[in-house]
Amino acid sequence: MDSMTIIAVASIAIAGLTTGFGTMAPALGEGRSVAAALTSLAQQPDASATITRTLFVGLAMIESTAIYCFVVSMILIFANPFWNHAIAQVAGQ
Amino acid sequence: MDSMTIIAVASIAIAGLTTGFGTMAPALGEGRSVAAALTSLAQQPDASATITRTLFVGLAMIESTAIYCFVVSMILIFANPFWNHAIAQVAGQ
Amino acid sequence: MDSMTIIAVASIAIAGLTTGFGTMAPALGEGRSVAAALTSLAQQPDASATITRTLFVGLAMIESTAIYCFVVSMILIFANPFWNHAIAQVAGQ
Amino acid sequence: MDSMTIIAVASIAIAGLTTGFGTMAPALGEGRSVAAALTSLAQQPDASATITRTLFVGLAMIESTAIYCFVVSMILIFANPFWNHAIAQVAGQ
Amino acid sequence: MDSMTIIAVASIAIAGLTTGFGTMAPALGEGRSVAAALTSLAQQPDASATITRTLFVGLAMIESTAIYCFVVSMILIFANPFWNHAIAQVAGQ
Amino acid sequence: MDSMTIIAVASIAIAGLTTGFGTMAPALGEGRSVAAALTSLAQQPDASATITRTLFVGLAMIESTAIYCFVVSMILIFANPFWNHAIAQVAGQ
Amino acid sequence: MDSMTIIAVASIAIAGLTTGFGTMAPALGEGRSVAAALTSLAQQPDASATITRTLFVGLAMIESTAIYCFVVSMILIFANPFWNHAIAQVAGQ
Amino acid sequence: MDSMTIIAVASIAIAGLTTGFGTMAPALGEGRSVAAALTSLAQQPDASATITRTLFVGLAMIESTAIYCFVVSMILIFANPFWNHAIAQVAGQ
Amino acid sequence: MDSMTIIAVASIAIAGLTTGFGTMAPALGEGRSVAAALTSLAQQPDASATITRTLFVGLAMIESTAIYCFVVSMILIFANPFWNHAIAQVAGQ
Amino acid sequence: MDSMTIIAVASIAIAGLTTGFGTMAPALGEGRSVAAALTSLAQQPDASATITRTLFVGLAMIESTAIYCFVVSMILIFANPFWNHAIAQVAGQ
Amino acid sequence: MDSMTIIAVASIAIAGLTTGFGTMAPALGEGRSVAAALTSLAQQPDASATITRTLFVGLAMIESTAIYCFVVSMILIFANPFWNHAIAQVAGQ
Amino acid sequence: MDSMTIIAVASIAIAGLTTGFGTMAPALGEGRSVAAALTSLAQQPDASATITRTLFVGLAMIESTAIYCFVVSMILIFANPFWNHAIAQVAGQ
Amino acid sequence: MDSMTIIAVASIAIAGLTTGFGTMAPALGEGRSVAAALTSLAQQPDASATITRTLFVGLAMIESTAIYCFVVSMILIFANPFWNHAIAQVAGQ
Amino acid sequence: MDSMTIIAVASIAIAGLTTGFGTMAPALGEGRSVAAALTSLAQQPDASATITRTLFVGLAMIESTAIYCFVVSMILIFANPFWNHAIAQVAGQ
Repeated sequence: MDSMTIIAVASIAIAGLTTGFGTMAPALGEGRSVAAALTSLAQQPDASATITRTLFVGLAMIESTAIYCFVVSMILIFANPFWNHAIAQVAGQ
Repeated sequence: MDSMTIIAVASIAIAGLTTGFGTMAPALGEGRSVAAALTSLAQQPDASATITRTLFVGLAMIESTAIYCFVVSMILIFANPFWNHAIAQVAGQ
Repeated sequence: MDSMTIIAVASIAIAGLTTGFGTMAPALGEGRSVAAALTSLAQQPDASATITRTLFVGLAMIESTAIYCFVVSMILIFANPFWNHAIAQVAGQ
Repeated sequence: MDSMTIIAVASIAIAGLTTGFGTMAPALGEGRSVAAALTSLAQQPDASATITRTLFVGLAMIESTAIYCFVVSMILIFANPFWNHAIAQVAGQ
Repeated sequence: MDSMTIIAVASIAIAGLTTGFGTMAPALGEGRSVAAALTSLAQQPDASATITRTLFVGLAMIESTAIYCFVVSMILIFANPFWNHAIAQVAGQ
Repeated sequence: MDSMTIIAVASIAIAGLTTGFGTMAPALGEGRSVAAALTSLAQQPDASATITRTLFVGLAMIESTAIYCFVVSMILIFANPFWNHAIAQVAGQ
Repeated sequence: MDSMTIIAVASIAIAGLTTGFGTMAPALGEGRSVAAALTSLAQQPDASATITRTLFVGLAMIESTAIYCFVVSMILIFANPFWNHAIAQVAGQ
Repeated sequence: MDSMTIIAVASIAIAGLTTGFGTMAPALGEGRSVAAALTSLAQQPDASATITRTLFVGLAMIESTAIYCFVVSMILIFANPFWNHAIAQVAGQ
Repeated sequence: MDSMTIIAVASIAIAGLTTGFGTMAPALGEGRSVAAALTSLAQQPDASATITRTLFVGLAMIESTAIYCFVVSMILIFANPFWNHAIAQVAGQ
Repeated sequence: MDSMTIIAVASIAIAGLTTGFGTMAPALGEGRSVAAALTSLAQQPDASATITRTLFVGLAMIESTAIYCFVVSMILIFANPFWNHAIAQVAGQ
Repeated sequence: MDSMTIIAVASIAIAGLTTGFGTMAPALGEGRSVAAALTSLAQQPDASATITRTLFVGLAMIESTAIYCFVVSMILIFANPFWNHAIAQVAGQ
Repeated sequence: MDSMTIIAVASIAIAGLTTGFGTMAPALGEGRSVAAALTSLAQQPDASATITRTLFVGLAMIESTAIYCFVVSMILIFANPFWNHAIAQVAGQ
Repeated sequence: MDSMTIIAVASIAIAGLTTGFGTMAPALGEGRSVAAALTSLAQQPDASATITRTLFVGLAMIESTAIYCFVVSMILIFANPFWNHAIAQVAGQ
Repeated sequence: MDSMTIIAVASIAIAGLTTGFGTMAPALGEGRSVAAALTSLAQQPDASATITRTLFVGLAMIESTAIYCFVVSMILIFANPFWNHAIAQVAGQ
């Protein structure tokens, strides 16, 4: 196994695992938030405006952690500095 | 094992694991949201419009994390830059 | 072990694991939703139309994550680009 | 170990594990649904028709994920394209 | 280790594990259902006919997932196509 | 290690593990059922006939999954087709 | 390591593990049953005859799974067919 | 490593693990039973005779699973047939 | 494998894992906070100003731990002193 | 590594692990019992004699499982028959 | 692999893991505190000053454990005495 | 690695692990007991003498399991018979 | 790998893990304490002085366990006797 | 790797792990005790003297298990008999 293969394999593996595991907790957290929002709506229908607004802000906040993971995956697949360096090294060889 | 085989195996494995594990949490989160929605509907049938709307927005939000995983899997199977580079390298050899 | 055997083994293993583990969470989530629906029906029999409709939409949504996994498994078994490439390479050798 | 043995072993192992682990969650989910149905029946005996119908639809939905796993196992044991390809390759050798 | 030994060992191991682990969840799910049935009977003795009938249908449904596992085990021990192929290959050698 | 030793070791190990792990869940499920039965008896002593009958049917159903495991263990120890084939092969050698 | 040593080690290890792990769940299940029985006795002292009888039947049922494990251990230590075959083979050598 | 050392090491290891892990569940189950007994005594001091008697029978039943493990450990340390056979084999050599 | 490849692989792997696992807990913690905020809003709509303000401060505090992880990942990918040292060493060689 | 070193290492390791893990469950079980006793005392101070007596009997019963583990550890350190046999063998060599 | 590479890899790996895992518990603990604060605010809006002050002191206390981890990571990346010693050793060679 | 080094390493490792893991459960059990004592004191301040006395007896009982572990650790570090034997063997060599 | 590298790597790894894992439990414990304090403040605002004082003593007590871990990490990084001995040995060589 | 390096590495690793893991449970147990104390203070402010005194005795008891771990760590780092023996052996060589 030459260097480029190893870097490619590591990038593939980590990109997938980061997205696969890193989106678990946001999905669970959002599920909890939505469930709480629905229970609250049933309990106090008059406060639906405040509840909905707070829910959306919260979901955006939680979604941001999933997006961090997705961004790291995309960097590893499409803008990987180590891979670029290896290609440059091979090309300049 | 030559380089291409290794990259192929890694892509297959990670594509499957990312989808297999990454869809777990969304499914659980959606199950929780739907359960909360049904309980809320039973408790406050008059607010069904608000509850249903909030539920669908929440489900879409949670589903998005599952779709991130599915997208990464599809990229790894059908648009894998490392695999393309390896094929190009072999072809140009 | 030649390349084709390795790719075949990896495809078999990942296809099975993706379906085997990826359908766990949907099954649990659907079980939760159905349980909540039944409890809600017992509590508010008059809202059965709304409850049933919301339940079916939710089940479809949750089932979709199981189907993502099944699709990835089927792609890996019957439409695997890496396997096709390996066969083409062997045939053209 | 020749290629055919490896593919056979992988198929056996994955077929068993997919069914063994993939039927866990449906069994738990169905247990939960049935338990909720029984509790609901005791609470609201008059709604038994609606409860029973919803239960059966839900059980069928959950059972479908177990059947996905069983189908993958059967494909791996009796209609495995990789195994067929290996046999064809050996026969044509 | 020759091929037949490996296939035999894999079949033994997977047959045992599939039954051993695959019957766990049905046992737990049935335990939950029976417990719910008993609680319901104590709460609403008049609905015993409906409860008992629903319980038996549910138990049969849950038991079916255990039977899938048992069937896969029996296939692997007594009707294993890979083992039969290996015996045929040895016999015809 | 010759083939017979490997098959013997695998049979011993799997026979023990299948019984050891496969009887866990039935024991827990039966414990839950018995506990629910006792609680129900204390709550509704008049329904003791129905409760006891339902309990015994349920216990038999749950015990069946433990017996599947025990049967597989016994088959592996005393009626193992792979072991018999190996002995026949050695005897006929 | 000769064959007999391996079989002996495997028998020792599996005999211990089967008893060690296989008695866990019965102990927990019996603990749960006894706890439920005591709570029920405190709640309904008049039904002590029925409760005690049901408890003993249930304990015997749960204990049976522990006894399966103990029996398999004893078979592996004192009546192991694979070990007997190995001794016979050595003696007849 | 000669055969006797391996058997000795396996016996030591399994003897310790069987007792170490096998007494976990009985201790937890007894703790649960005693806790339930104390709660019941506080709730219904008049039934202390029945509660205490049932508790002791239950504790004896649970303790029996711990004793199975201890017995297996003692057999492995002091009456191990495989070890005795190995010593006899060495002595008769 | 030369030194640079190893450092590159380690950096890729740790960068992904740090973000993937390190954002799990913040997502769960934020989900809990948002859920509590929504429940509180439904219970006491008049205190929405205080609740919202406290929620945002809390979310920022929790988000900070996710940002620590993201920062470490970015440092490892784009400003890694060990990688820079290795490049300098190679360039100056 | 000669035989005596291996036996010594195994004895040390198992002696520590048996005590270290085997005392976990008794400590938890006793903690639960004591907690239940204190709650009961607060609820029914008049029954303190019965509660205290039952608690001590229960603690002794639970402690016995911890003592089994400690005894096995002490046997392995100070009265290990395998170690004694090895020393005798070396001395008589 | 020379010494410097090993130290670099170890520093990278531990720096990431320490931050990635060490910020998990603070995030969960802060989430719990914030949730309790919001529930308390909804229950007793008049005590908002005391609650907010106590919350901020508590969050600072919990955040401190996350900062310990971040500090250790930064020390390992930017002020690692072992790395400095290795560089000095190489430079002075 | 000579024998003495191995025994030393094993003793160090097991001494640490036995204390490290073996004090976990007592700490949790004592925490539970103390929490129950405090709750009981708040509920029934008049019974503080009985509660405190029972708490101290219980804590001593639980602490004893932690002390078993500490004793085994100290024996392994300062009075290890296997280590003493090895030193004697080296000295007498 | 020479001795110094191994010791350096071990020190780095353990220093990070000790802080990373050792601060988990204090963070969770403090989060629980703070949450309880906030709930108590909302329930009994008049006792805020006593509650706050007890909280701070408790937090200091819990924080002490985190500080033990941090101290051990700092000792391993900056005052490691094994590392100093190795340096001295190298210098005096 | 010579003997001293191995012993040093083992001492470093175990010292860190013992403190890192061994302080987990005390922190959780103390957190639980403090939480219970705060809840009790809010419920019964008049018993604050008894509650505070009992809390401090309990915390000291729990803290003792953390100190056992810290003591073992310090012994392993600064007063390790195996390390001293190795140094003496080297010095006297």
